[in-house]
Amino acid sequence: MKYRLLTPGPTPVPEETLLELARPVPYHRTPEARAILKEVLEGVQYVFQTQNDVIALTSSGTGAMEAALVCAVPRGAKAICAYAGRFGERWHKLWQAFGIESVPVTAPYGKAVSPQQIEAALKAHPDAVAVCVVHSETSTGVKHDLAAIGPLVAKTQALFIVDAISSAGALELRTDAWNLDLVATGSQKALRMPPGLAFVSVSPKAWQRIESHRPAAFYFDLSRYRAKLKDPDTPFTPAHTLLRALQISLRRIRAEGIENIWNNCARLARAARAAVHAMGLELFAEVPAEGLTAIKVPDGLDGVELLQRLEKKYGLKLAGGQDHLKGKIVRLAHMGYIDFFDVLAALVGLECVLAEMGHPVRLGSAAAAAQQAWLGT
Amino acid sequence: MKYRLLTPGPTPVPEETLLELARPVPYHRTPEARAILKEVLEGVQYVFQTQNDVIALTSSGTGAMEAALVCAVPRGAKAICAYAGRFGERWHKLWQAFGIESVPVTAPYGKAVSPQQIEAALKAHPDAVAVCVVHSETSTGVKHDLAAIGPLVAKTQALFIVDAISSAGALELRTDAWNLDLVATGSQKALRMPPGLAFVSVSPKAWQRIESHRPAAFYFDLSRYRAKLKDPDTPFTPAHTLLRALQISLRRIRAEGIENIWNNCARLARAARAAVHAMGLELFAEVPAEGLTAIKVPDGLDGVELLQRLEKKYGLKLAGGQDHLKGKIVRLAHMGYIDFFDVLAALVGLECVLAEMGHPVRLGSAAAAAQQAWLGT
Repeated sequence: MKYRLLTPGPTPVPEETLLELARPVPYHRTPEARAILKEVLEGVQYVFQTQNDVIALTSSGTGAMEAALVCAVPRGAKAICAYAGRFGERWHKLWQAFGIESVPVTAPYGKAVSPQQIEAALKAHPDAVAVCVVHSETSTGVKHDLAAIGPLVAKTQALFIVDAISSAGALELRTDAWNLDLVATGSQKALRMPPGLAFVSVSPKAWQRIESHRPAAFYFDLSRYRAKLKDPDTPFTPAHTLLRALQISLRRIRAEGIENIWNNCARLARAARAAVHAMGLELFAEVPAEGLTAIKVPDGLDGVELLQRLEKKYGLKLAGGQDHLKGKIVRLAHMGYIDFFDVLAALVGLECVLAEMGHPVRLGSAAAAAQQAWLGT
Repeated sequence: MKYRLLTPGPTPVPEETLLELARPVPYHRTPEARAILKEVLEGVQYVFQTQNDVIALTSSGTGAMEAALVCAVPRGAKAICAYAGRFGERWHKLWQAFGIESVPVTAPYGKAVSPQQIEAALKAHPDAVAVCVVHSETSTGVKHDLAAIGPLVAKTQALFIVDAISSAGALELRTDAWNLDLVATGSQKALRMPPGLAFVSVSPKAWQRIESHRPAAFYFDLSRYRAKLKDPDTPFTPAHTLLRALQISLRRIRAEGIENIWNNCARLARAARAAVHAMGLELFAEVPAEGLTAIKVPDGLDGVELLQRLEKKYGLKLAGGQDHLKGKIVRLAHMGYIDFFDVLAALVGLECVLAEMGHPVRLGSAAAAAQQAWLGT
């Protein structure tokens, strides 16, 4: 059976990138290795739409967020953490682990924290030195409105820290235009790579803050990486064979064009949502992110069984809900190296499984709706 | 021209491991992924010769050392850091970055810190809660005598933290027999993998200490990983395609047998050193580690040019010295997936380049000496 990976991370990796991973290992402190790193950092700048410095880390996306959060906020200082899902909660806990006073600004799972909430928190906490927001909250499929929040934060002393782990390369993301000071992502979402690499972009405002205090950091001390940026190198051994492979995926992204990729992702999202409605199902996210669609499992159906049937019978690997959402939602990715026909397979497979499980569906309705939405007719 | 990687990290990766890296990416939260992680953790236990828990991290070896050093020692506490080279110095700086009082116990580059020095430091600082030693100091090729130091530390309250980054899988390493509390390594040395993964083993004595304080850590908080060890999983997205490939390299290591690997590594070291002496050259390390040989560049020869000739003309990639040792030493690895004939190529290539550069050598002397030492005749 053919396996189709349609989870919101990891996502499928293009064949030419996989083949690059199988090439012999070279030494990592050479002009050739620095040239690869340079091209990768420029490629991530392009994906982030920024002129800011980009730092490459060998870690998961959580490592990149730790670097951003800990370097930006001194121990004992106060910061605002917006969350409406599992990943935002993680950053709240991370700050607490480092002795930072994290002020939560929250919304229920499935909803988004509003720009007005952020504005009110900034007014109530003028001493906050940072605001953290998850762009695409992968646990619920919700998108936060960075374009609206950015200018609110920019008016203050606070740094705007963005978790773009499942958004960079999928959703419209304009780091410079939206005043995003620190933006973090991981390799295994829309960058079309396996996990193992992560990136943070750092604005001049953020560098000024970072250089002004000595963070409790070493491996994730962004200043150490900054010192190596000229003819770029890394302070610690990088996963340089992953960087070499990412170069291949980034070339493909550049060739496609980032705006085309955002538009295509939004188009796939519309197709998926049209099919969801056509099957009589509901979206979980009130303001859905374009990189994935979170679908409510209908009452009376076992969401765990549904996912198992999709995987075992049809080779379609979708993700379920985490923690208290387990069995309650299905999460379908449409970002990175996933195209319309992959999404179509997932939607039609879902319709087949719903029929098998006795849920009333009309076979063909998902495909018809997806196709119409995709073509925009 | 054929390229031969003979640097003390990264080292060559077996072909079947490289091919594994090119396989499609699966989802990472599945029984299959947990089974791979389980086998990898057991494989690292075998390499470490320990029954202690092993934690897998997605980072370079420095990340694993940060996890060990920061989780073991509370902020403001005192710890002893032995160093006689660049990597030991790094751990001293790391502790300082986290507000830990690091007491240096040093020896000049090329020499080893003696067990007597450690014993004296433990007596002078009975409040020290940890001792950190680099097993194989890759920057100088020096080995530290863990078997002698282990029992000295075990008599005290201090935890014994070992950097085994370039030693695990190369030098004799007996974590349990030698009372090593926290042992860290990276994937790109003798584990026969590209960089991107790192491991830490944790003794019961170390767990007790770690759980008794809240470290300034999140991504490297070992307790978070410990909580996932039953039916093993990871708290953050692991580089699971690297884990799957490491499984292949570890199977090969198990099939060869760790004692055979140590013996073979020591045999290659003897061959390399015999050839060095036969060429009229000198070793840099007074107590050399078996994983690499650091060779003094003869006075009057340009060590940078020597390495360039080896690489450009013969495809032999050896490492030079770092910082003030640049141009002064040549470092040849003989660990991991490097065999006698690879080492022979490097030694004969070195002899050829010495001849080209006008240094008096008798062609064939390196090969003869290496071969004799290797066969033990």
